[in-house]
Amino acid sequence: MKLKAIIRLFGLFAILAIPKIGRSQPPRGPFVVSPKVNPDKTVTFSYLAPNASTVLLGGGQFGAVDVPMTKNAEGVWSVTFGPIKPDIYPYSFKVDGVTVMDPANVNFFPNERFKGSLVEIPSDSPAIYALRNVPHGAVTYEYYPSVEGSTGTIVVYTPPGYNKETSKKYPVYYLISGTTDTEETFWKVGKTNLMLDNMIAEGIAKPMIVVMPYGNPAARIAEQKSLSKPTDIVNRDSEDAVRRAKFFETDLITNIIPYTDKNYRTLANRDNRAIGGFSRGGGQTLRAAFNNVDKFAYVCSYASYISPAEMDKNFTNITANPDKTNKDFKLLFSGIGTEDFLYKGTVEWETYLKEKKINYKSYVTDGGHTWMNVKKYLNETLPLLFK
Amino acid sequence: MKLKAIIRLFGLFAILAIPKIGRSQPPRGPFVVSPKVNPDKTVTFSYLAPNASTVLLGGGQFGAVDVPMTKNAEGVWSVTFGPIKPDIYPYSFKVDGVTVMDPANVNFFPNERFKGSLVEIPSDSPAIYALRNVPHGAVTYEYYPSVEGSTGTIVVYTPPGYNKETSKKYPVYYLISGTTDTEETFWKVGKTNLMLDNMIAEGIAKPMIVVMPYGNPAARIAEQKSLSKPTDIVNRDSEDAVRRAKFFETDLITNIIPYTDKNYRTLANRDNRAIGGFSRGGGQTLRAAFNNVDKFAYVCSYASYISPAEMDKNFTNITANPDKTNKDFKLLFSGIGTEDFLYKGTVEWETYLKEKKINYKSYVTDGGHTWMNVKKYLNETLPLLFK
Repeated sequence: MKLKAIIRLFGLFAILAIPKIGRSQPPRGPFVVSPKVNPDKTVTFSYLAPNASTVLLGGGQFGAVDVPMTKNAEGVWSVTFGPIKPDIYPYSFKVDGVTVMDPANVNFFPNERFKGSLVEIPSDSPAIYALRNVPHGAVTYEYYPSVEGSTGTIVVYTPPGYNKETSKKYPVYYLISGTTDTEETFWKVGKTNLMLDNMIAEGIAKPMIVVMPYGNPAARIAEQKSLSKPTDIVNRDSEDAVRRAKFFETDLITNIIPYTDKNYRTLANRDNRAIGGFSRGGGQTLRAAFNNVDKFAYVCSYASYISPAEMDKNFTNITANPDKTNKDFKLLFSGIGTEDFLYKGTVEWETYLKEKKINYKSYVTDGGHTWMNVKKYLNETLPLLFK
Repeated sequence: MKLKAIIRLFGLFAILAIPKIGRSQPPRGPFVVSPKVNPDKTVTFSYLAPNASTVLLGGGQFGAVDVPMTKNAEGVWSVTFGPIKPDIYPYSFKVDGVTVMDPANVNFFPNERFKGSLVEIPSDSPAIYALRNVPHGAVTYEYYPSVEGSTGTIVVYTPPGYNKETSKKYPVYYLISGTTDTEETFWKVGKTNLMLDNMIAEGIAKPMIVVMPYGNPAARIAEQKSLSKPTDIVNRDSEDAVRRAKFFETDLITNIIPYTDKNYRTLANRDNRAIGGFSRGGGQTLRAAFNNVDKFAYVCSYASYISPAEMDKNFTNITANPDKTNKDFKLLFSGIGTEDFLYKGTVEWETYLKEKKINYKSYVTDGGHTWMNVKKYLNETLPLLFK
């Protein structure tokens, strides 16, 4: 079929589907499909680079470390890797030593530093975090008045049917992502929304609202004031640094929770409020919970801890009266992977809690400091909340 | 201050802020701030690559084409460019010939093919698309039952105060992004939500709901069935290809609009329904509007057109009775840049409309097929809707 005939039939739709060749855009070359998940759970990764000398599959948290890729006659490099254990993994390419995302893949890892793409290998029976044919909740981005006159962003999951009711109220889980993650990471990588959709459909978890804040308001303030971001730990003992280190907690307690309670139909009391987080967000979780026992009844640390020294210094309110603490916290969860670089510290913290007769639920899995593990922690904890 | 003392004082928070050196993660090197917008509206771009031979600033739609960057002693390449005219622009780096996003910048361009970062150069008085201190609407991601048993995604802007009322109903603008863009592009790049927040605060635009669909449901169906994406235009004249070419319109009319009217407080009639789109989305806009005159009263084409040949073949319903058409469409908008590669075709289409005595509002600006221009088209059209 000739180009003119195509254009006559389909007009602009066809024109725009044809690789554009023109002054402003270079030829696109062959249309690359990547990643391509094969029925045997191997994955074929491809990258167009006719002039590159080496292309490696890198950063693949499924065991792919600098796997050589092969170039075809059209200049497309590819490799088939696996079979890979079903999960969602980040990966990237190393092109002549330069790390890049997969340009053919729209699913990226929201992060302030590294730029990775995501691949999902489906399991034979759909995983608890998979998109299934069940009623879906919604995910809403909200602006709110944050600390220091800045405008903050939260991402809010509301359960299926939230919009169709006008009076039903829900418990709230405040869920904080890790260092260099953003307020998007817990849904775009952690799939918290799809897990809850599925768990609610199965009756495993209670319908709840999940509020996902951004963990580093100091950076956002700097950005909005067009200043540099805080770059290092110099002067962390200054008065200003101490105040800034508390920004997140201040923001959560004085801004985010009141904003949520005002704008969503929440059950606004401690028995219906949970807090959890991964990595830095786990540390923020524990400090916020221990400093505000009146605010949270469920506390989930995902790959994080507080050192015994800091516990002794700052949180004797938690350890002085274990009976009260054990009554206050309906859940104190600590999840960690044996290969996590924070494993040792977490074990020390749990040992400390045990000595102080503080109840906690320990969940130890294999794997490292990864979002594959975060989904396991979510899978353990979401069913325990608000019950 | 010693590391141990820092850890004692700040615990994990400090540990996690320190560049990690360990088995699983290479040293991070110096903390790079990029882009850095300077008070004189120059921008300093930086990229860490101690071992690269050349790093260029590329893809910068502010006039930066392969601008050489310079390496400092720490291995950070940087260049200060500008001053740059206030706007939001995509850019990337070319590292030894390999195009990469800016790893230090969390603001990326949502796209299925190219991977670009975004920089905003603020103007002296805040632009209409800037984050201002006004009441903000919310942006919600929804799953809905789409064509062929697939699950679709729409992004929905609701105006300030939407959640606080329970009965007020709103008009709806269906807004479709371009080829390889996603349902995220109109808010993350086009800033439609912030423009409406500002325009509503100033009383320039009516409070409205905006529904942003994904323009290529065929690709999503393939993805969810774990098939390859449609890769080319072979067999576009087959029955199946014709059906697939109509997927978007079918999805919009039979799924997206009913879903929106069911789940949001909409004024569900043609006088309160607008449709618009950019590039491929503009073509989809015009075809959907001309095929469904009973559904839409406001029609906005941003850098798109229908060829006279296709008009004559498929849309005599529009041209046969211009008086009726001119009454039906309260707005038929055509915006185009003089450097846009679709400029000539757009002029031909407008000439054709004039000959057929169809009223339209033409808006010609400088610039090309860019999202900087999309914001100009939004700026022209949003105040005209539903009035």
